[in-house]
Amino acid sequence: MNDSGKHVVVVGGGFGGLWATRALASADVRITLIDRRNHHLFQPLLYQVATAGLSAPDIAAPLRHILRNQKNVEVRLGEVIGIDAAARTVALTDGDVVGYDYLLLASGATHAYFGHDEWADDAPGLKTLDDALHIRRRVLMAFERAEAADTDAERDAWLHFAVVGGGPTGVELAGTLAEIAHKTLRREFRRIDPAQARVRLIEAGPRVLASFPESLSDKARAQLQRLGVEVVTGTPVAGIDAQGYTLGAEFVRARTVLWAAGVAASKLGALLEAPRDRAGRVLVEPDLSVPGHPEIFVAGDLASVRQANGQPVPGVAPGAKQMGSYVARAIHARLSGRTLPPFRYVDYGNLATIGRRAAVVDLRGFKFSGFAAWAFWLAAHVFFLIGFRNRLILMLNWSWAYFTYQRHARIIFGGKESPGSSG
Amino acid sequence: MNDSGKHVVVVGGGFGGLWATRALASADVRITLIDRRNHHLFQPLLYQVATAGLSAPDIAAPLRHILRNQKNVEVRLGEVIGIDAAARTVALTDGDVVGYDYLLLASGATHAYFGHDEWADDAPGLKTLDDALHIRRRVLMAFERAEAADTDAERDAWLHFAVVGGGPTGVELAGTLAEIAHKTLRREFRRIDPAQARVRLIEAGPRVLASFPESLSDKARAQLQRLGVEVVTGTPVAGIDAQGYTLGAEFVRARTVLWAAGVAASKLGALLEAPRDRAGRVLVEPDLSVPGHPEIFVAGDLASVRQANGQPVPGVAPGAKQMGSYVARAIHARLSGRTLPPFRYVDYGNLATIGRRAAVVDLRGFKFSGFAAWAFWLAAHVFFLIGFRNRLILMLNWSWAYFTYQRHARIIFGGKESPGSSG
Repeated sequence: MNDSGKHVVVVGGGFGGLWATRALASADVRITLIDRRNHHLFQPLLYQVATAGLSAPDIAAPLRHILRNQKNVEVRLGEVIGIDAAARTVALTDGDVVGYDYLLLASGATHAYFGHDEWADDAPGLKTLDDALHIRRRVLMAFERAEAADTDAERDAWLHFAVVGGGPTGVELAGTLAEIAHKTLRREFRRIDPAQARVRLIEAGPRVLASFPESLSDKARAQLQRLGVEVVTGTPVAGIDAQGYTLGAEFVRARTVLWAAGVAASKLGALLEAPRDRAGRVLVEPDLSVPGHPEIFVAGDLASVRQANGQPVPGVAPGAKQMGSYVARAIHARLSGRTLPPFRYVDYGNLATIGRRAAVVDLRGFKFSGFAAWAFWLAAHVFFLIGFRNRLILMLNWSWAYFTYQRHARIIFGGKESPGSSG
Repeated sequence: MNDSGKHVVVVGGGFGGLWATRALASADVRITLIDRRNHHLFQPLLYQVATAGLSAPDIAAPLRHILRNQKNVEVRLGEVIGIDAAARTVALTDGDVVGYDYLLLASGATHAYFGHDEWADDAPGLKTLDDALHIRRRVLMAFERAEAADTDAERDAWLHFAVVGGGPTGVELAGTLAEIAHKTLRREFRRIDPAQARVRLIEAGPRVLASFPESLSDKARAQLQRLGVEVVTGTPVAGIDAQGYTLGAEFVRARTVLWAAGVAASKLGALLEAPRDRAGRVLVEPDLSVPGHPEIFVAGDLASVRQANGQPVPGVAPGAKQMGSYVARAIHARLSGRTLPPFRYVDYGNLATIGRRAAVVDLRGFKFSGFAAWAFWLAAHVFFLIGFRNRLILMLNWSWAYFTYQRHARIIFGGKESPGSSG
């Protein structure tokens, strides 16, 4: 380890933090990477864990393992609960205080309920592996409860799946739930027909995938409907409880409501005395540093950054990776007394998957959808997954799932929803 | 579904219950298979999930999926809490009461602490997927805590892994823990050297793998020591708490103690008014029925059965499968007015794995150990795993792990031991 250099503390081992850390491999610095979890998570495939298509370890890799050969990094499992920008230290829950010369905050985002935190228990969101396994248990148990239901009304409530939020995550979840109901579970139940399940995607705005061109939103809607998803737009959800949800003025009985509507920046942003936007993202300088603190950087979903065209940099993996790499270059530059031109987001395109053979792709205006888009999405995700083994397993799993419609991870374990503890 | 036939209720979807159910596919009966969990678990590989070599779904398959094409079976998720042998009904936790003409109890065994239930929290055992994931978190977190330790004594306590019980599970766990410490984690930590971890296997009796011939116990001990495991025999553990364990008169600081010593039959046996052995197993008739209740059968780890040589049928998968199949044949025979000769266990041999390239095999007196035994063990376990996909994934995982020493499932999630919740 190089103790003569500056000390860079990176908080968060997601795309932003990890890409910055790796890009500093040859820098004359020592780095401490702090994360609450021991793994980097390939978040674009998290919905596959939630819908039992992949196992948790298929889309995660231990941070220590990824960085084992980078000698100037120390990985530390822990949670930051305080930042003293004057003293240049961060405080951890275990009482330790860590000093820094440069600090990168890249702790990402979490789901948010727009002031309705009371909905959280009844409408789980999807940000971590634990969230994904929670949703998986809920969905699998819903079919079990439907099979055991005493009345038609009860059965229908267990077979109603509502996904709130028509962004990429909501679209992925709804499309996959429809496939589970119509294909995967075929022939497995004796009292219910899983294909009778209703999967509803609810978007308050006028269209799904609002970040895409309108023509692709229309395609996505058509593809969702072909998969068996009922798409409701232009109507916000006004209430959620354990029995169902309120849409407009109507209460709909549904025992499974999933939340894919709101995102808020990690609470770490609030520890800085810096201006933030409505979602809690830190309004950073053009070089991604915090106003008044050139030694503190923010990257990924915690940073509020504008593109040249005035649009915000979207909260997607390529954005976080580019910011992380930029911060590494900025630190490099500072160490050698140079300055860097402002961060500039390179938009390679936008893609979203909808389900089996259905996706939409927008590559700088070159738009396509359907099977070709789906194949493109597949290839991109296999390519960007970390680790050769994980890629191999992913391809094998997906080939298997494609031809058999099976989702091998339909195993209920953990949590209070598991049958062993709830009866 | 055939409603004219008799109703067979099978409790437990392990090897005993599942093999009985499948062997009744062509019988003129309808079957209700009740399990607290939604999956059949390939228990012989559970230690691999605990030691992060496999994902939970790799060794489990949904019971509904396995039985989807067997029309005379209904799978029911639920827990039996009462048996009324006079009325021929079982009661479930959800309040339902299910009648039967024939009942098969095959709910297996759980770990037991020989009257020391207070050890349970500090020395987790291994019977379910949740147990395995709990142990996985504990082991992975121990290395993290060692890395963060403030004193040498604290660090050493986190790096001391004690496995209590020298049977097959204890041997597997200890051998694999040693491999993790010496190989898998190499280069990943900056403050500790994981290879300094002490892995101790503690057996109260005179030798490990007591169910094997003495020569193989000696081989197993030598192979364990070669892998870096310290084997302690002839000394019982007298106490366990959160700080360590007492061996003889000495208290040893150790933050990770795993329990592989005691097994007790499932509590379901106690619901019958039938004689049971010390471990709670039901003393069944030669046809595996309960004394006085020819319509109630017991199979697998819940049954206490003697072989022709007076030895008990061991609590291994082949024993449970053979009992399950026998009960199916016995019900077949009863339905056609025949009787069957008594159950006879066919002992094809005994094998136990110890770790990388180390195992012992005893095939009816033909004994071998080392690499050949390990290859044989591997082939047998791949062969007996349910589902083509799972076999493929297993082979792929093991080839990968063999050449890289990596264990891909080293992902900490779930539970209160996970860093996100405990800091």
